[in-house]
Formats: sequence, C-alpha cells, structure tokens
Amino acid sequence: MTYQLYYWPGIQGRGEFVRLALEESGVAYQDVARNEGIPALMTGMTERDAAHPPFAPPFIVVDGMVIGQTANILYFLGPRLGLAPEQEAGRCWVNQLQLTIADIVTEAHDTHHPVSSGLYYDDQKSEALRRSHDFTTARMEKFLRYFEGIVQANPDGPAFLAGPALTYADLSMFQLIEGLTYAFPKAMAHLTPGLPHLMALHGAVAQRPRIAAYLQSPRRLPFNEQGIFRHYPELDADREAPQTYANPT
Amino acid sequence: MTYQLYYWPGIQGRGEFVRLALEESGVAYQDVARNEGIPALMTGMTERDAAHPPFAPPFIVVDGMVIGQTANILYFLGPRLGLAPEQEAGRCWVNQLQLTIADIVTEAHDTHHPVSSGLYYDDQKSEALRRSHDFTTARMEKFLRYFEGIVQANPDGPAFLAGPALTYADLSMFQLIEGLTYAFPKAMAHLTPGLPHLMALHGAVAQRPRIAAYLQSPRRLPFNEQGIFRHYPELDADREAPQTYANPT
Repeated sequence: MTYQLYYWPGIQGRGEFVRLALEESGVAYQDVARNEGIPALMTGMTERDAAHPPFAPPFIVVDGMVIGQTANILYFLGPRLGLAPEQEAGRCWVNQLQLTIADIVTEAHDTHHPVSSGLYYDDQKSEALRRSHDFTTARMEKFLRYFEGIVQANPDGPAFLAGPALTYADLSMFQLIEGLTYAFPKAMAHLTPGLPHLMALHGAVAQRPRIAAYLQSPRRLPFNEQGIFRHYPELDADREAPQTYANPT
Repeated sequence: MTYQLYYWPGIQGRGEFVRLALEESGVAYQDVARNEGIPALMTGMTERDAAHPPFAPPFIVVDGMVIGQTANILYFLGPRLGLAPEQEAGRCWVNQLQLTIADIVTEAHDTHHPVSSGLYYDDQKSEALRRSHDFTTARMEKFLRYFEGIVQANPDGPAFLAGPALTYADLSMFQLIEGLTYAFPKAMAHLTPGLPHLMALHGAVAQRPRIAAYLQSPRRLPFNEQGIFRHYPELDADREAPQTYANPT
C-alpha cells in the first residue's frame, strides 16, 4: 500500500498531524507537494477523484481513495498504522479526543486570523490582540487542563491519552504542545507546572526513536509565521501585566 | 437500546445535528436537559463516565458509553440509525463531509463571537462586523459552492451528498441551510440561485415525513440569539452596498 500525503509545502500546519502518524509508523510515504510543488497539490485536490474532492488540504491518496479532513484521515490511518485501538469504543474515544484537539488548533489559528484567512495578520492585528488575550488567559487553560485530566484518569495508566498504548491522538497532543510552546511561550510557561502528565506525554513522544529521528531530519519543517502556530510576541499574554487594548465599543 | 441526548436546553446549537438524525430514524430517545434542566447536563458531562468525559455538549449516552463531539456522535449513530453507508469508504466520505460542515458551522458561530465565547456580542461587535463581512461575502460562497458541486457530481445521482440514500450529512446540510437562511437572509438570497442541487436537497429533507412532523412539533426549538445561527441584521451583508467599518490598523 502506498501512502501519498498532500499538503502545503512550506508549513507544518494541519498536515503535520498526519505526517507524525506516518513517521511514527515507519511506513513509506510520499509528501507530494514537498517534492512536486503546489501545482501538484492543486491537481491532486481537484483531479484525483473528481466526485470526492476534499475541501482543503491536507488529504491523502491511498489505493485510489482520496481522503480529506485531518481527523478523518487519522481515523482511517489509525488501525492501518497500529496507532488506534481495534475495538469500536476505543476508536470512538480516540476520535473524540482528536476532534477536541482539532478545536483548539482552530482556535490557535484564529488568534492571528480572527477576521479572515484572506487578510494579512497586520490587517487584523487589533482583533488578533483581543482574541489572543482570551485564548492565552482562558481557552488554552480550559483545553489543556481537560486533556491533563484525561491522561491522569486513563484507566490503563497515565502514560497515554487513551488506553494502554500510543495512539495518533498522543502524537497530535505532542504537536499541539509543540505549537503552543512556539507561539505562546509565556502563556505556556504559566500553564505547564499544572500539566505534569501532559508534559510527560509530550516528552515521551519526543523521545520515541522514529519521532526523534524525524524531528532531527530535514523532513520536519521549522515553525514559521505562515503556519497555524505563529510567534507574534504581542499575542503572547504576560499574565503579570495583562496587555491593554482599545475598547472597540 | 436507549439513546440519551445531552445538550443545552434553550438552543438548537450543535445538538440539533444529532437531534435531526434521531428524529429521522424514528428511534426513541431522551432529550435529557430539555426534561431535567442544566444541572442534569452538568452531572452527565462529569459523572456518567468520569474517565471519558466530553469537553462540551452535545454528547450522547448509549449502553453506558458517553460519546462526545458532534461528528463523532453521528459517526457512531450513523449505521445504527440507517443513516450511513455500511462500507468503510462510504462512511469515510460521509465523515469527511460532516467535518467540513462542522467547519462552516464554527465559522458561522464566530461571526458573532470572533473574540471570545465568554463575552457578549455587544462587547465584540466591531470585530463581528468585519468577520461577518468576510463570511457573507467570501466564506459562505466557498463552502456552499463546494457542497453544491458535491451533490451535482454524486455518481449515484444528485439527490444526496453521498451515495444513493439519505445520510446524516444530508440532515446536517439541511440544518446548515436553515441556519444560514435564518442568520443571513440577504447573503443567502444572493447565493441560492447558484445552488439548485443544494436547495433541492434542503427541500426534500424538509418534506420527509418524520422531519416535517418534527419541525412542526414543540421539540423543534426556534432559532434565537443565543444559538450558533443568530440573526443580527447588521451582520448580514448587503452586496449592493457593502457595509463599511473603521479600519482597525
């Protein structure tokens, strides 16, 4: 079976959640747009299966099937890559966690693009300041404390989010923490002392041999200010001295 | 099998996507918080299965399993209610469509809450004007034309989004169009002439006997300004005279 991943070639973005699963499994895959550029991405999106086009990258092509939406891709790949439970209840729980991770990823994106993906950050900066203040002082904590509680309460022990073995949701949690730490180092420094199980999980994923090798390789793109997780210092709350912004009303 | 749905009792919200699937199937279900109030919702969220709590409503309880995240609930219910294909490829495609519907639903919500769910609309109105302008003049069209193309290109004929029979994604598409028409009647009036297959699908769902009976019943809450789809006339673009707003930079 050949796996082809299609995603924007210059950013980690949502493609990284899929890439981490492929890398951890050790399966051979092609990162099509990294090799062939954006025209191949556009062609793949509209022409690989004209009746079932994805709305947006990332998508994968496996045995002629075109599969889009990050959580859907991972649900499909999970059992094939040994990264999901076999039983329905377990797969359902992992999917639920993955969709909750997807929700905070969308909110992280919207801190710098709260008005429109079609406008530059500089053209929505005042809105971004307000949204990121809410994200760094309320939403991040709400999500991360939820996930901390999930790991802590795992009936199979507090090593993973779900069950007794690594799943793709753990890999996505690693990436979420990586991204939030890059984008919001001050907010994360404030929160991480209250997240011991989550940070231990993050560290354990980073040390898995295939993930460690991947992170050192040129295949791992660096974070940058075109992706989902962007480091704009003005958006990273300093809780000791909350930033002020003009009241818009 | 007993189905219990837990959701905020005063709004359609994301619970409605689950409710429509339950109603169309004709299965017996309990709408717990509608009967017992918000305390039952809170108790259900934290205590029904303390090791697998949902992050937020809606969630369902089936045979002791607690299942959250709208698309995940529907993925689970789909085959049980006769509202999803049986084969993996078909289920995967329906899930992909449902997740894309979930994306536009989130964007519709953020038109009135672009800064924070924890603030009132009036406290984020200037940001809401900008975000909804982008939504009504760009994003709505991009999503809806995509879905129109999906119905039109359906290899089994242009009656449904996926395959030869109704799926939960069709019910969700009905609800999306209902909600957008309530919230943004001007923008929808501009777009619907270009969406003949989608509007025919919407009409066909509305006329299904169980859905028609449900829509007439007191179980169907009216849209209001506490839900996801809210009608604030100032957020509904008039394309003939685009609204202006202060440049925030």
